Amino acid sequence: MRERLLEAGLSSIHRHGFNGCGVQEIVDLAGVPKGSFYNHFESKEALGAEVLDQFWHDHARGLLRVLSDESLPPIERLRRYFSAPAEKLAALDYKGGCLLGNMAAELSDQSKLIADRLSSIFARWTCAVANCIRDGQSAGQVRTDIEAETLASFLLNALEGATLRARIEKDGRPLAQFIDVALNHLII
Amino acid sequence: MRERLLEAGLSSIHRHGFNGCGVQEIVDLAGVPKGSFYNHFESKEALGAEVLDQFWHDHARGLLRVLSDESLPPIERLRRYFSAPAEKLAALDYKGGCLLGNMAAELSDQSKLIADRLSSIFARWTCAVANCIRDGQSAGQVRTDIEAETLASFLLNALEGATLRARIEKDGRPLAQFIDVALNHLII
Repeated sequence: MRERLLEAGLSSIHRHGFNGCGVQEIVDLAGVPKGSFYNHFESKEALGAEVLDQFWHDHARGLLRVLSDESLPPIERLRRYFSAPAEKLAALDYKGGCLLGNMAAELSDQSKLIADRLSSIFARWTCAVANCIRDGQSAGQVRTDIEAETLASFLLNALEGATLRARIEKDGRPLAQFIDVALNHLII
Repeated sequence: MRERLLEAGLSSIHRHGFNGCGVQEIVDLAGVPKGSFYNHFESKEALGAEVLDQFWHDHARGLLRVLSDESLPPIERLRRYFSAPAEKLAALDYKGGCLLGNMAAELSDQSKLIADRLSSIFARWTCAVANCIRDGQSAGQVRTDIEAETLASFLLNALEGATLRARIEKDGRPLAQFIDVALNHLII
C-alpha cells in the first residue's frame, strides 16, 4: 500500500505539481482509502520527501550508471548521459519536466524538509557527474581549468534551466542547444 | 484598483507560488473587495499572465538597459547584467527566486496562456542578451564559434537553473559558480 501511495504521489506531483494535487487525488489514484494515507505518511509534505528519494534511487539505479561505465571513454559517458533527457522529454511531449527542478521551484521556500532533501540529492548528483568529469580530465578529454565539482554543478543547473525552457516552448531546441554548447564548446 | 491587484498578485505569487495563493489572499493584500477582482481580471490565470507582463516591463525598463549601454564595453555590460541577480537574491536570503522560472515550473503544462506569455518574454529576453553578445563578438571580446542567439539562450537557461539551486541551498555559491564559468570560461 505504501509503494502504491509513493507511485501515485510521484505521478500526481509530476503531472499537477505539489500544490496542484491533493491527498484525495493521490489516494484515489493509488486505490486506497484516505485513512490509510496517514498510517504511512505524516503529511503530503512527508510523502513528497519520500517521492524525491524514490525518484533519485530510480535514477541512480538507471541512467546515472552510465557515468561510471568504465567500458566507455569519459567524454562518451558524459555525451550519453546528457543526451538522454532530451529524448525522454521529447517522448513525453515536453510535459512534466524534471521532478527535482519542479519541486525546487515550488517548495524551496515553503518546506525545509523538501529543500534539505533536494539539497542532498543535488549534492549526490553533482558528485556523480564530477567523478566522470575528473576521469575525463585525467584522460585529457575534458578541460582542466575549471574544477570538476564546479563544472558538474554548472552543467546540472544549466540542464535544469534548459528543461524548464523546453517545457515552456514544448520544443526540443533548448535541450539541443544545451547539449551543443555544453558538450561541444564548454567542457572540452 | 487594477494596479493594486497586479502589485498584490505579483507579491503573493512570488512568495507562495501560483497554486499556493488564492484570489482571496490577493484581494486581502490589495485591500479591495473580492467582487472587484473579477471586474478587472477574468481569472487568477489572467491575472498571472498580466503579472508576467508587468514583471518583464519593470525589468526591461530597469536592469536590462545595461545590456545596450554603449558607454560600456560589451563584455562589461554582460558582466554587470549577469552579476546583478546574485546580489539581488542574496539581499532576499535567496527566497522567491525568479518569477519567470517559478511560473514556468508550476504552470507550463497547465496553462497555455501562461506558457505562451513566458515563451514570448523569454524570446525578448534572449534577443536583448544576444544583441549584446553580438556587439561583444564584433568587438573581439566574445567567442564567435557559438551563434549569439544560442549562447544567449544557453546563458539565460543556466542562470535560471543556478537561481533555482541557490534557492534550494539558500546560498550564493551556485550563482557565483554560474558567473565564474559563464563569464570567465564559456563566453570568452
